[in-house]
Amino acid sequence: MSADKRIGIAGLGTVGSQVAARLLSGAVPGAVLTAVSARDASRDRGVDLSGQRFVSNPQDLASADDVDVVVELMGGEGGVALDLVQAALKAGKPVVTANKAMLAAHADSLSEASCGSPRVPLAFEAAVAGGIPVIKAVREGMAGNEISRLSGILNGTCNYILSRMEVAKLGFEEALKEAQDKGFAEADPFLDVSGTDAAQKLTILSALAFDVAPDMAHVSLTGIEQISAQDISFADGFDSVIRLVAMAEHRGAQGVFHQVVPMLVKKNTTLAQVSNELNALKIEAEPVGSIFLQGPGAGGGATASAVLGDISDIVQGFGRALFRAPTSGMKESATQNAPDSEYYVRLALADKPGSMAKATQILAENGVSIEEVVQRSSQAGDSFLPVVFITHHCEISALRAAVGALEAQKDICNEVLALPVFTEEM
Amino acid sequence: MSADKRIGIAGLGTVGSQVAARLLSGAVPGAVLTAVSARDASRDRGVDLSGQRFVSNPQDLASADDVDVVVELMGGEGGVALDLVQAALKAGKPVVTANKAMLAAHADSLSEASCGSPRVPLAFEAAVAGGIPVIKAVREGMAGNEISRLSGILNGTCNYILSRMEVAKLGFEEALKEAQDKGFAEADPFLDVSGTDAAQKLTILSALAFDVAPDMAHVSLTGIEQISAQDISFADGFDSVIRLVAMAEHRGAQGVFHQVVPMLVKKNTTLAQVSNELNALKIEAEPVGSIFLQGPGAGGGATASAVLGDISDIVQGFGRALFRAPTSGMKESATQNAPDSEYYVRLALADKPGSMAKATQILAENGVSIEEVVQRSSQAGDSFLPVVFITHHCEISALRAAVGALEAQKDICNEVLALPVFTEEM
Repeated sequence: MSADKRIGIAGLGTVGSQVAARLLSGAVPGAVLTAVSARDASRDRGVDLSGQRFVSNPQDLASADDVDVVVELMGGEGGVALDLVQAALKAGKPVVTANKAMLAAHADSLSEASCGSPRVPLAFEAAVAGGIPVIKAVREGMAGNEISRLSGILNGTCNYILSRMEVAKLGFEEALKEAQDKGFAEADPFLDVSGTDAAQKLTILSALAFDVAPDMAHVSLTGIEQISAQDISFADGFDSVIRLVAMAEHRGAQGVFHQVVPMLVKKNTTLAQVSNELNALKIEAEPVGSIFLQGPGAGGGATASAVLGDISDIVQGFGRALFRAPTSGMKESATQNAPDSEYYVRLALADKPGSMAKATQILAENGVSIEEVVQRSSQAGDSFLPVVFITHHCEISALRAAVGALEAQKDICNEVLALPVFTEEM
Repeated sequence: MSADKRIGIAGLGTVGSQVAARLLSGAVPGAVLTAVSARDASRDRGVDLSGQRFVSNPQDLASADDVDVVVELMGGEGGVALDLVQAALKAGKPVVTANKAMLAAHADSLSEASCGSPRVPLAFEAAVAGGIPVIKAVREGMAGNEISRLSGILNGTCNYILSRMEVAKLGFEEALKEAQDKGFAEADPFLDVSGTDAAQKLTILSALAFDVAPDMAHVSLTGIEQISAQDISFADGFDSVIRLVAMAEHRGAQGVFHQVVPMLVKKNTTLAQVSNELNALKIEAEPVGSIFLQGPGAGGGATASAVLGDISDIVQGFGRALFRAPTSGMKESATQNAPDSEYYVRLALADKPGSMAKATQILAENGVSIEEVVQRSSQAGDSFLPVVFITHHCEISALRAAVGALEAQKDICNEVLALPVFTEEM
C-alpha cells in the first residue's frame, strides 16, 4: 500500500465536522486528515481538531505541502469555494465537493480544469441526492446502458412540505414553517421551494447520463409555492399525491428534455412512496430496464457519507474527473419540447350558467380532450368554484394555449394551475 | 486516451450474447471485443460475431495475446469457469464474472489470486442482484460508513413465486410451475427455492460490508418450499406479506449473523413493495442512515448491464480486486446467534378440548409470550385446525425449544412452521 493521502477540509459545518470526525476515527483507510479551514477556528464542533493544522485562508489548502486531496464543503455558487476548487485542480490535486450550485453554474470552467489533460479527479457524489450513491449508479453502474429517462425526487425540503400537506392536511405556508422549525428548510427557502436546487442537481445528472452540458436555462422549472391544500385533496381523489419531480428524458433527435415540476403521481408508483425528507431516483435504461434508489437526500450524516465515499475512491486511485469531457466536447443538445402528457388542470370557475360549457369549449378548441372532471361544491357565497380537469395525453403547446385562453376569460375563470401527470409504473 | 482494451468473453448464452452485442455497438468506450468462446460456434445468437476470433477452449482466453480482459459468463461453481478465472488472474488479466456460486464456494483461492500483490481486478457486480449496482453501493458508496445491517430480496425466482401466491392465490407448486413457464425458474429449481442462491449472494455482500470471509455454513438457511397458500392468507390477516429475506447483521462482539429465511413482512415497509421478479437491497449504516435499492435481479439485459459496467470500470483503470484482502486476512467472524425477533408460528392443532391450552402452555414454559392468536374454522371433518401465534420478541433459543416441544406433542399438534417477522420500516 502506498503512503496515506493527506486530506484538507474547507468548511466545518455539520457535514465538514462529521467528515473530519470519521476521518480521525480511521473510517477511510489510506486517508489522514492533516488540515482544516473554517471561519471560526475556536468553535466547538464536537470533534477534537487540535492535531490538525488550521488554515485561515481556505485557498491555502490548494497550495499546502501537507494536503494531497482538497474537500470543499463551504458552499456558495462562486466566490471562495470556486476559487479554492479551481486552484486545487490547477495544482493537480483531487477535489471532493458537495456543492451542486457551483457545479451547475460553473460546469464549463470546472470541466475544463478537471477533464483536460491530465485529468484531475473532481468528485461530487454528495452534490446530488445526499447519501444515495446516484452518481455512481448513473455514471458507473449504467455505463454500458443507453439511459432513456431519469426521474426523481431530488429536493428533500419540497418533499417534506408536500408530504406534510398530504398527511397532516397543512397548507403550504404551515408546512413550510414546520419544515423550517425541524431544520429541513432554510430561513430563506427560495432555492428549495422554487425547484432551483432540484434543477441544479438534475443538470449535473443529465451531463453524466446524456452527455449534455449543464445549463439551468434548459430546465422547465416550476416550484411548489402554488400548490394548495385543495390540490393535495383533489390529487387524493384521483388516487394520487403531488411530488416535485425532476425529470430528464432523451427525446431522440430533438435532444434531452429537462423539467422540475410538481406532478400528480399515482399512489401505486414507487415515486409516490417516497415520503418526507427522503430523496429518490428512478433510472430507465437499456438493457437494464428500471432501477430505483431511495434514501436520505440531505443532512449532515448522509452528505458526509457521500463525501467519505468519494475520499475513499480517491485515496485508492479510483478518483474520476468531473465529466467524460469538458462541456465544450459534450455531444447532446437540450430541447424545451416536453413529451406529451396527461395534465391536471385546476381552476376557479364562475358559479354561473355557461361557465363550464365555455371552459370545456376552450379546452376542446385547443385540442385538449378531457378524461375526468371534478367540481367541488362552494362555500356559501363563493362566486367561483374549484374545478379540476384531468386531460387525455396532449401536446404541451396545446395545453399552454388552452391555459392561456382560459386565463384570458377572467369573468368565468381564474387561478389556473396545470400540472403534468406521472403515471409510469416501475 | 490509451489504447482500447481487448475483451474476451467465455460463454455466449443470453447474457454473453447481449454483452457481445453491446460491445460491438460501441456501448463501452475503450473496450473492443476480440475473442469469444462457447460450446457451439455455429449457433445463431442474433449477433454477428464473424469478426471475432472463436476460441474453442475457454481456458485459452487467459493466455491469448489478443485478450486484455476476460469475461466469464459460463457459470458453474467450479470446473471450467474456475479454471479460466484462476488462469486469467495468474496471468495478471482483469476478470469480470457473474458467477455467484463460484465466488461463494471459492472465495479463498480467488481472493488469494486477486487481492494479493499485485492486486488483479476481479469484478462481479452481476453476481448479486443483477442490474442493481449493489456491489458499488455497498463497497464504494458506503466506504466511509459503518454498516449495521443488509437486508434484501436477492432471489427473483422466490419473489416471483411468493408474489404470485399472494396476488393470484396460487399454491406453491402452481406458482413454481408458472415461474418455470415464464422463464423465471429453472427446470430444477432447487438452488433458488431452497434459498441457496440468495445465500451465496449474501455471503459475497457480507464480505464487502463486514469483512467476513464468505462461507455458506454461516448462513441460517430456510427455503420457501414449506410456505403454503394458507400462510400467505394468514400473513395478509396480519397486514403482511411473505418474502424470502436475505439478511446480514453486525451483532457487535458476537460477529455477523447471516440468514436467508421467509419472513412475515409488514405491508408498509419498502421490502413488501418489492414484487414479482424484482430484487432489492436495504443498507443500514452510520452516518448515512438507510439506503434502498430496487431493480431487476436477473435476466439477460439486467445481468449484461452489470457486466458492461464492470468492463467500463476496468478499461478506465478503475477495476477493483475481489475483496479488500484475501479471506485469510478478513477480520470479522460470523455468529449463528439470531437477533431476538417476533415470530409467526403456524401449526395444525387437534380439534379437541385442551389442545389450545396445552399449546399455549408449551409456549409459556419456554418463555415465548403470545401477542396474537388466530384460529381458522376447519373443513368439516378435519381433526386438526390451522392456528397461528404471533409471538412477542423472543430469543431464537426459546423459540426453537418451544417449536421442538410443540412438535413432540404429536397428538395435539403437527406441521409446525416458525417464521421471523420483519417489522423495521425505512
